[in-house]
Amino acid sequence: MAELRYDILGVGNAIVDVIASCDDAFLTEHGIEKGAMTLIDEDRARDLYSKMAPGREVSGGSAANTLAGVASLGGRGAYVGKVADDDLGEIFTHDLNAAGVDYATLPLKLGPATARCLINVTPDAQRSMSTFLGASVFFSEDDVDGEKIAAANITFMEGYLFDRDDAKRAFIRASELAKAAGRRTALTLSDTFCVDRHRSSFRHLVANHIDILMSNEDELKSLYETTDFDEALSRARAETRVAAVTRSEKGAVIIRGDETVEVPADTVTKVVDTTGAGDLFAAGFLLGMARDLPLYDCGRLGVIAAAEVISHFGARPETSLEALTESKNARLK
Amino acid sequence: MAELRYDILGVGNAIVDVIASCDDAFLTEHGIEKGAMTLIDEDRARDLYSKMAPGREVSGGSAANTLAGVASLGGRGAYVGKVADDDLGEIFTHDLNAAGVDYATLPLKLGPATARCLINVTPDAQRSMSTFLGASVFFSEDDVDGEKIAAANITFMEGYLFDRDDAKRAFIRASELAKAAGRRTALTLSDTFCVDRHRSSFRHLVANHIDILMSNEDELKSLYETTDFDEALSRARAETRVAAVTRSEKGAVIIRGDETVEVPADTVTKVVDTTGAGDLFAAGFLLGMARDLPLYDCGRLGVIAAAEVISHFGARPETSLEALTESKNARLK
Repeated sequence: MAELRYDILGVGNAIVDVIASCDDAFLTEHGIEKGAMTLIDEDRARDLYSKMAPGREVSGGSAANTLAGVASLGGRGAYVGKVADDDLGEIFTHDLNAAGVDYATLPLKLGPATARCLINVTPDAQRSMSTFLGASVFFSEDDVDGEKIAAANITFMEGYLFDRDDAKRAFIRASELAKAAGRRTALTLSDTFCVDRHRSSFRHLVANHIDILMSNEDELKSLYETTDFDEALSRARAETRVAAVTRSEKGAVIIRGDETVEVPADTVTKVVDTTGAGDLFAAGFLLGMARDLPLYDCGRLGVIAAAEVISHFGARPETSLEALTESKNARLK
Repeated sequence: MAELRYDILGVGNAIVDVIASCDDAFLTEHGIEKGAMTLIDEDRARDLYSKMAPGREVSGGSAANTLAGVASLGGRGAYVGKVADDDLGEIFTHDLNAAGVDYATLPLKLGPATARCLINVTPDAQRSMSTFLGASVFFSEDDVDGEKIAAANITFMEGYLFDRDDAKRAFIRASELAKAAGRRTALTLSDTFCVDRHRSSFRHLVANHIDILMSNEDELKSLYETTDFDEALSRARAETRVAAVTRSEKGAVIIRGDETVEVPADTVTKVVDTTGAGDLFAAGFLLGMARDLPLYDCGRLGVIAAAEVISHFGARPETSLEALTESKNARLK
């Protein structure tokens, strides 16, 4: 078996977030689905950006946020995803490397700009995302790094990749390589609308290629087309080895075979921006899984990491999550 | 006289800030002068950036921050300064327009990238700035917009412009145009190191071209080469119509002829990042001057705006300063 050099390898859309505040009327006026991730083209991106409030730019991308969280927890992480050779691509690359994540996918030389996600945050801390995928669409099977997959305990992929056929194939390829190398795979469903768009592909993937399923309550119910959470859980129990389901302020439920573990949410003084909550839960949970911790401890790392990221703007940790978890006497190893 | 369309016109280096946290050892290791603004070339910018922690990008530039503050206070503002035709230039332009500032300087098509200021913030909330001036150096006399100057009550320029001869000439030209149009000029000394580099030019300008001088205590003492604050104030009193001097937690002292007005600092729960404190004091103070408010009220607007900006990362207001000043019963008009 290849040398184990990473706890987690992330595969995802390499995106820079543009975060601005808005009111609910702004969402209505510009036809933005509240709380969802909507794909937009370049013209729409330009038009919407021109109407947004002054913003701040921070590196984002669901799986990349997760990997930044893994590194902040003291884990060893790598990332695969495509940026363009432009300012935003440079920012994305710098931020991930500076966070301690091994990231070296070649930037796209000719073609569209680095992907950006226009995030409008309403006063209730909900984020509504409009994503221009740009250069990240040029991520394909060729970019799947078999050597890195073989070196990672868990290869983690984001459901958002399913919006593109090339990336979907890359996804399957990565799963096969992980299996061949005796490693595990994890998937996040990402977004209810994303599940709606690709339900049958998701179901096939979950049933056949995924060891660890990450989702929130609504995404899981959407995957199995039920309004009954318990029924959705039963389905997931039958089809995956492990599933971790987040339920906002109700914390998380984790299932594995006959086991069911509930983990309460960690306390947050003030929720500022929920962007990245699921990504950071995945960081803690998956690092715990990579380190073979008990399920409760995996979940506890997840809720602590999620609580930190929703207490400020932006989807990456602003303090050392390793120090934070230690201060809370949570088990890290 | 031309129609009065703006309270304040700002002239400055158009810069995007890259803000990251660091410890004091980082500053020592990389030879960064704590609390100062140091000019760096492109190679140094690249090298230093590669060593910095993950950052957030927000539009900056001293005078541009001031104008964003003027707009947030409900004032009418315009800005002149040069960006490149790249991602950061687009971000700068968007953010200033979205803040409600009239900004339409043509971007540089060929040449260096948009200016960036690498800001390392230590745990004591001090910011140490390393600036690559990039495209902003291509601002010259040709970019001075006489029509806008004639339409502005006060034309406000930043001392940082003095680091380049072309901009220095643009500065003098702008002052002459303002005078010819019957308008006023204001200058901020910007930084003690900047004053050291250009003391004689500054003294000449202050004595001959400037109506309103903005500075902090150390900059004023450096300008007149004295360690005695009272002596520096006397010199400023003799050479300017109005001078407003900030003294951090001690508030501000304003002098005009025989008048001396002291304004205490506004309360801040937690100082997070002092970047922009002087810029935002200038926003409040100059808007008050443009509206012919009493000196105390001008200063009060200044300290309220400064207190808001140091309570978070970034050098531009994150709440409506107009609403904030109203909530504090400060006089706005």
